[in-house]
Amino acid sequence: MKKIYFTVGPSQLYPTVPTYTRHALKDDIFSLSHRSEQAVQLISETTERLRVLLTIPKTHQIFFTASSLENMERSLQNTVERYSFHPIIGEFSKKFFDAAGMLGKKPYKIDLDITNGWKLHELNIPKRTETICITQNETSTGIGIPMQEISQLKKQHPDKILAVDVVSSLPCVPVDFHACDIAFFSVQKGFGLPAGLAVMVVSPQAMEKSVYLAKKGVVIGSYHSFPTLAKAAEKYQTPETPNMFGLYLLGKVAADMHRYGRERILSETEHKAQLLYEACHKHGFAPLSHNTQHRSITTIVVDTKSDAAAIRKRLAAQGMIVSAGYAHRKNSDIRIANFPSHSISSVKKLIRALS
Amino acid sequence: MKKIYFTVGPSQLYPTVPTYTRHALKDDIFSLSHRSEQAVQLISETTERLRVLLTIPKTHQIFFTASSLENMERSLQNTVERYSFHPIIGEFSKKFFDAAGMLGKKPYKIDLDITNGWKLHELNIPKRTETICITQNETSTGIGIPMQEISQLKKQHPDKILAVDVVSSLPCVPVDFHACDIAFFSVQKGFGLPAGLAVMVVSPQAMEKSVYLAKKGVVIGSYHSFPTLAKAAEKYQTPETPNMFGLYLLGKVAADMHRYGRERILSETEHKAQLLYEACHKHGFAPLSHNTQHRSITTIVVDTKSDAAAIRKRLAAQGMIVSAGYAHRKNSDIRIANFPSHSISSVKKLIRALS
Repeated sequence: MKKIYFTVGPSQLYPTVPTYTRHALKDDIFSLSHRSEQAVQLISETTERLRVLLTIPKTHQIFFTASSLENMERSLQNTVERYSFHPIIGEFSKKFFDAAGMLGKKPYKIDLDITNGWKLHELNIPKRTETICITQNETSTGIGIPMQEISQLKKQHPDKILAVDVVSSLPCVPVDFHACDIAFFSVQKGFGLPAGLAVMVVSPQAMEKSVYLAKKGVVIGSYHSFPTLAKAAEKYQTPETPNMFGLYLLGKVAADMHRYGRERILSETEHKAQLLYEACHKHGFAPLSHNTQHRSITTIVVDTKSDAAAIRKRLAAQGMIVSAGYAHRKNSDIRIANFPSHSISSVKKLIRALS
Repeated sequence: MKKIYFTVGPSQLYPTVPTYTRHALKDDIFSLSHRSEQAVQLISETTERLRVLLTIPKTHQIFFTASSLENMERSLQNTVERYSFHPIIGEFSKKFFDAAGMLGKKPYKIDLDITNGWKLHELNIPKRTETICITQNETSTGIGIPMQEISQLKKQHPDKILAVDVVSSLPCVPVDFHACDIAFFSVQKGFGLPAGLAVMVVSPQAMEKSVYLAKKGVVIGSYHSFPTLAKAAEKYQTPETPNMFGLYLLGKVAADMHRYGRERILSETEHKAQLLYEACHKHGFAPLSHNTQHRSITTIVVDTKSDAAAIRKRLAAQGMIVSAGYAHRKNSDIRIANFPSHSISSVKKLIRALS
């Protein structure tokens, strides 16, 4: 029985990936020199297809890195001399906060009330904050921060850098790149690709901050500092030998998704989320947030109030793989991904299997 | 016409890679959760197969990262508070030196005489040096430092950390891990795999230094500091979602190479290098070093003393792809890889094509 992966990432492959993998073998993509004309062409296509699909402004640079944990590190190194601010909504926002401490910054956090909700614009953000670090969609708790709240926050604090983890948001929900000075994601979530490649979109304001810090003598990293990444990206290159297979697949799948239609992806994501939340409600599975506005539509996390492992096992017997709860919530929660690689019919199949 | 890639990396795929890629698709390796039992099993197999193939001592830890430029950064962050020392033999040793400066260290370099050779044990290494950074095999110049010289250097300086770039050495030449406190490589060179995964082997002495620096308040990085990598590696995990496909292929190919025989790989590498150097000599192509001891046997770089681009074009017309010279030597040199994926018969084919 062919399995369907509703895991929150790595997840179900986008349906065209097996075909492109065979093409990659045939066309020697695995042996392609990263400094060849053909590689420049490939990276330029991937970059510009992403820009079109996600409507990334021309002013913003697109960098390729290895993981979202790397992107957290690079965001902090390149935009924070001392003070970062972190609203916490789960384990990944905590990781962002912890990274700042490990990098010798002075991070400050506020635990948001994930059960009852919050008002982001009412948060007391210390004046000295240089960068506000936000996890837009928390894969650990299924909590999401609506993009309008983030846009409003940027309007309130135009002088501060907003570094936004959109790891499990794109391309399934709209992202306002004018509000996000840094927005980063990995390809094994919404893009349905094998892991090992991540993307960082950087605004002129974040670039300027990085250059300013470097001039001041602050260490902003070596091969993956923003200026070094920018110098390579200008020529559609990367400082290191990159994951060329990942870049190849990302370009192909971004083009497929653009053909399919971003608007269609956005509306289908909402529709499938509604179906999944309704099904969960029917079975007495409870989302962690009482506030529907703060529920993720891409990674649905519910407290099964029973033996979550048994439920996962029962689903697996029918070929449906869902994720366990994160860390200490392993035995109570299940986590269900809702990405473009999950068709409406496969979501309906999962809902039937839940009954 | 199916091409043969003699490029210095990415290079010719190891012959079993296409089959394993098809297996990876069939067995859902691309969708595999990195926190699953199966992933732990996969990473443990890859780790232990590498340990056996390369005879890595049990005392040493094996970490997986994204690139060798990353490994340079991590080596410096985790073992240097202030002073690193760099013998320069080409562009990659310069990159290692430059990275130290960018990371706020005080690197000191000596340009080795790559034409006439050097005596590593006669170098005047500043006493305060914490880490000696060595590029064992220079892909840019085709200069190699014999492992005996490196072992002797470590004996001379047992208190200093030796961080050795063996990027284009392994598994084709012996590496003495008792001399190398850090040895790192990428998989797109000697292992004949797609790029996007790198390996770092770390000694207890290097680990201790990292822990010591962290206690002292020196920034040693976040998700990829040695202690964080070690904590994950202990459970055969990685801090981030890793390039699981790369890890899968590396484990499979390490097992294949072990079955084929490491000794056989070592002796065949020497034999093929001899054939290639003889052929180059016949055509008046000159290695950069007059000293045969300091010539790489895995990445053969020769000054064609004529139009290198025309030679590369002529070879390409016969399906043989070789690398251009590095940077400013683009028009004079050609670079030829000699890895386990290059069979003796394919090397002979290249030699015939050169005539």
